[in-house]
Amino acid sequence: MRNVILDCDPGHDDAISIIIGASKRSGLNILGITTVAGNVEVEKNTRNALQVCELIGLDVPVVEGAVRPLVRESEIAPEIHGETGLDGPVLEAPRKEKSSGHAVDFIIEQVKKSEGKVTLVPTGPLTNIALALIKEPSIKDNIDEIVLMGGGTFGNWTPAAEFNIYVDAEAAKVVYESGVPVTMFGLDVTHQVIADEAIINRVAEIDNITAGFVKELLIFFAETYRNHFGFSGGPIHDACTTMYLIDPDMFNFEDVNVTIETKGEATYGMTVVDLLKTTGKTENVKFATGVDEETFWNVFLDILDSYGETNAEA
Amino acid sequence: MRNVILDCDPGHDDAISIIIGASKRSGLNILGITTVAGNVEVEKNTRNALQVCELIGLDVPVVEGAVRPLVRESEIAPEIHGETGLDGPVLEAPRKEKSSGHAVDFIIEQVKKSEGKVTLVPTGPLTNIALALIKEPSIKDNIDEIVLMGGGTFGNWTPAAEFNIYVDAEAAKVVYESGVPVTMFGLDVTHQVIADEAIINRVAEIDNITAGFVKELLIFFAETYRNHFGFSGGPIHDACTTMYLIDPDMFNFEDVNVTIETKGEATYGMTVVDLLKTTGKTENVKFATGVDEETFWNVFLDILDSYGETNAEA
Amino acid sequence: MRNVILDCDPGHDDAISIIIGASKRSGLNILGITTVAGNVEVEKNTRNALQVCELIGLDVPVVEGAVRPLVRESEIAPEIHGETGLDGPVLEAPRKEKSSGHAVDFIIEQVKKSEGKVTLVPTGPLTNIALALIKEPSIKDNIDEIVLMGGGTFGNWTPAAEFNIYVDAEAAKVVYESGVPVTMFGLDVTHQVIADEAIINRVAEIDNITAGFVKELLIFFAETYRNHFGFSGGPIHDACTTMYLIDPDMFNFEDVNVTIETKGEATYGMTVVDLLKTTGKTENVKFATGVDEETFWNVFLDILDSYGETNAEA
Amino acid sequence: MRNVILDCDPGHDDAISIIIGASKRSGLNILGITTVAGNVEVEKNTRNALQVCELIGLDVPVVEGAVRPLVRESEIAPEIHGETGLDGPVLEAPRKEKSSGHAVDFIIEQVKKSEGKVTLVPTGPLTNIALALIKEPSIKDNIDEIVLMGGGTFGNWTPAAEFNIYVDAEAAKVVYESGVPVTMFGLDVTHQVIADEAIINRVAEIDNITAGFVKELLIFFAETYRNHFGFSGGPIHDACTTMYLIDPDMFNFEDVNVTIETKGEATYGMTVVDLLKTTGKTENVKFATGVDEETFWNVFLDILDSYGETNAEA
Repeated sequence: MRNVILDCDPGHDDAISIIIGASKRSGLNILGITTVAGNVEVEKNTRNALQVCELIGLDVPVVEGAVRPLVRESEIAPEIHGETGLDGPVLEAPRKEKSSGHAVDFIIEQVKKSEGKVTLVPTGPLTNIALALIKEPSIKDNIDEIVLMGGGTFGNWTPAAEFNIYVDAEAAKVVYESGVPVTMFGLDVTHQVIADEAIINRVAEIDNITAGFVKELLIFFAETYRNHFGFSGGPIHDACTTMYLIDPDMFNFEDVNVTIETKGEATYGMTVVDLLKTTGKTENVKFATGVDEETFWNVFLDILDSYGETNAEA
Repeated sequence: MRNVILDCDPGHDDAISIIIGASKRSGLNILGITTVAGNVEVEKNTRNALQVCELIGLDVPVVEGAVRPLVRESEIAPEIHGETGLDGPVLEAPRKEKSSGHAVDFIIEQVKKSEGKVTLVPTGPLTNIALALIKEPSIKDNIDEIVLMGGGTFGNWTPAAEFNIYVDAEAAKVVYESGVPVTMFGLDVTHQVIADEAIINRVAEIDNITAGFVKELLIFFAETYRNHFGFSGGPIHDACTTMYLIDPDMFNFEDVNVTIETKGEATYGMTVVDLLKTTGKTENVKFATGVDEETFWNVFLDILDSYGETNAEA
Repeated sequence: MRNVILDCDPGHDDAISIIIGASKRSGLNILGITTVAGNVEVEKNTRNALQVCELIGLDVPVVEGAVRPLVRESEIAPEIHGETGLDGPVLEAPRKEKSSGHAVDFIIEQVKKSEGKVTLVPTGPLTNIALALIKEPSIKDNIDEIVLMGGGTFGNWTPAAEFNIYVDAEAAKVVYESGVPVTMFGLDVTHQVIADEAIINRVAEIDNITAGFVKELLIFFAETYRNHFGFSGGPIHDACTTMYLIDPDMFNFEDVNVTIETKGEATYGMTVVDLLKTTGKTENVKFATGVDEETFWNVFLDILDSYGETNAEA
Repeated sequence: MRNVILDCDPGHDDAISIIIGASKRSGLNILGITTVAGNVEVEKNTRNALQVCELIGLDVPVVEGAVRPLVRESEIAPEIHGETGLDGPVLEAPRKEKSSGHAVDFIIEQVKKSEGKVTLVPTGPLTNIALALIKEPSIKDNIDEIVLMGGGTFGNWTPAAEFNIYVDAEAAKVVYESGVPVTMFGLDVTHQVIADEAIINRVAEIDNITAGFVKELLIFFAETYRNHFGFSGGPIHDACTTMYLIDPDMFNFEDVNVTIETKGEATYGMTVVDLLKTTGKTENVKFATGVDEETFWNVFLDILDSYGETNAEA
């Protein structure tokens, strides 16, 4: 069993990523979920994480983390995820409560005490991960991989920068330069997994609570992506991370150098991906260039389907 | 007849661009050719331009321009174009001589005195064009369009920047912010017109001196692109500009804002193309997104073929 | 009694600052000493802090903090402070041990639980303070003032930047933009308190262990400042902070805006002090412009002298 | 006789600088005056230069130059120099006309054709000088010195940048990196030559037209400096350049490296002066650190007095 911490700002696609990661099929040992300011304020992201856990019966600590980025002021994206950060499904207030302490300390402690190495799976801004690496650099030795959603060769928040990296580019710089292996799902690949009407219809055919919840998420997400970007549906960006942990072979990768731009005026927060190897810099990232879409959606739907069993048990 | 000035640093693809622009089919009134430091030193670029003119019997002034970029130090690319800047064909020293004066003044004078508006066609670093706009801003009123090769949503000299723009990003900033309509052929489209072995073979079938010269250029260029970038042939970047002047309909465009990054560490010289309209900035560029490749090569070969007539006449 | 936390990287002038702050005359309630990577590695700075505490009988927690800056790589200054960070006096290994936990958490806890407000007194890079403000922004409400040594209208590590700010300019940006009142002792004032031969001679006349220790520090420090900067002695920069807490009236101040430069190539880490009010930005700093040198040294020597009583008691 | 070109944006202190340089005592061979956008628009600066020439009977070409900076947008300072750029004295429209051509070409031609080396004396933004060096780098060999007013270890337009350098920092970068010896009069020294009431009274005692004109300039200039900066009078910044050409010994200098900051957010346009030699960079500037004020004003007043003879002769 692979030990993972899901560090997130749910967020429609974060929620879906958790659902995939928490499925029995995933074979993952989720040590906990940590939250970070990102899509919306961290308190909302924490509440959303708790609601998702409750809905799917995932009994792990949910620990709140950074309220703000390292250096810059906070920036949030309610226009994409709604006021709650998880608009769409109607959810009751969660009974599950967050754990005490700070996400940064939870990450440090879990990594330090884990016998096997730990995989960090950030799907929001990288503030918590960076803070953990700054506060306790020695944890690097017990992290086998950081599997993240962020960046790309183009942006969605600015022409050059993707939202997660843009919000805290300094944190991203810390993570990418840390020496820990980074597996990166940027917009290049996440824009290939758009949950359009056909996908939503297939989800709608699955008869369990989790799938119903996912369907609601996808409907809302498709709507905002249609309006803002003219897309045929919402790309479930963050889900690539947990899908990869289940079945890495459906993705294609290139080993590349990625440098985080923190000085540029029009390019702040860009992940500069050296695909043509023009820089001569050391490769520090396993960069996802593509995915077998058919496999992706089949596995995805299988996992949602499997929640029928899970829910029945719980 | 459209009045054009070809501002270039030949350069294999610059040379081909001149050949296309100078063909009878082009219907262009070439006021002159100006040269700029770029692929190699400006003196070499001037000599190359003179050789091309002589070869194809193009009798227009060739005026030498900027020795160096506006602000940064010079950077050249002999690894792509060879020591002469036009390695491949064996050429005699040209008998044609460059005109006196500086390219910047030639551009200013030609634009000022032209009855109809002038189209500037830069296919090297934008130093000359920027200097002209700085020295005599009033010329803007008599320039109808700047049709340039440069930039793109990705780079070839760094991961973020294309060579022409990188070499003099400050000049690019001046040009893009000038208010003159810019039609931009960046790597996104120029990497679609790769002269691979099949194309070279078609060129080889054309029996005239110009085509023979182009064949030699393409063979050398294919070799360096194979070695440096693993491409199947050399993209004849600059030729897109004159091909567009002959047949604009073979290209697809989007009106976008493009901002030049001059502050970034890893992104200096990037043309930040706002395809998703995230910035809200005014559209200042007609950005070529694609080309009908079949049409492109057919027209290209037709033009080369037409040089048989031309040469016979001369 | 004013509650203070001394956050430092001793460091000759840090050590002297602690000695001043810990004197009975200071009237300060020292909640603890926290250490940070700066003049030398944090482990050495911690050991040095423990040694100073032991020497002067100061019984407060010494808590180790950040190993590295927020975003940049570490940079240290052994050429100024020697290999140990406190070269000069010969000291035995301290028996006193550092407290467990991380400086960042110590600061957060102390500020949160203190009844009266707490004054933070950083005399090294601002990493710990910034991390505390990032991790728990709510502590701002219970900090009355950050009294720091750093920056100035000119630099000593680069022409534009002073060492403490340069080492972690991003941390400085967080602190200066936090909204907490900052009282700043930069090089403008600290270069007025140079312990030259005359001062060292006056210190040498004081017959107690602490003064003897300070004498050794000053001799070494004078030597490095002579060699590196051609000064007549070492400026006891950090001591300005605790001297101010004892007798604020000996200093002159201006309320100004100070902005931290984090993007500049030649100016990274500069504290841009708006003395001429050209920016129109809100004043966020009480900037020390000068000091009554005679008063400064008289108070300083009185305090060293008072350690005779203290040591006798202990 | 030293050959000089005065490149300026008059401007009260530019006007005074011309008057000093044009005096018989100066022993300067003024090849011409070139103007540049700066204090106000270039057309106004040209008209002001013509008026000054006419007033003092200086018969040299006045050639208009750059309308705008190299890369950035124009910025002017009418709040300091008034709407005309030379508010204060009431002047008739000049009969003298500007010469044809562009200042950049005038500079290039004069330097190229001069038998002895030429000294350039820019007292405005460095746009013309930079453009000349970019357009014709070979002129460097016949320029012996660039004696300029600009920059300093602090600013007056922003906290870090002086107006002339700020307006066109890219041009300044070109000039400072050109390899031509630069003698620099920055605010450090120019703020030592403040024409306060006492000085104005001494000027008022001199009975000739030129001195009367200077008196009017100083009265207006003192007023704006009082209002904007709280100074006791106007510093006649630019006059340091021609005063230096007459009597270099009244100034103190240090040979230092000066780097122009063009990337910083709060420090754009700063002249980073390495007085403490922390960078190890090659010295490229003779930096004026101070002036013997008494000598300065005595020489200054003598020169104004000498205009009585001059005017009489004319």
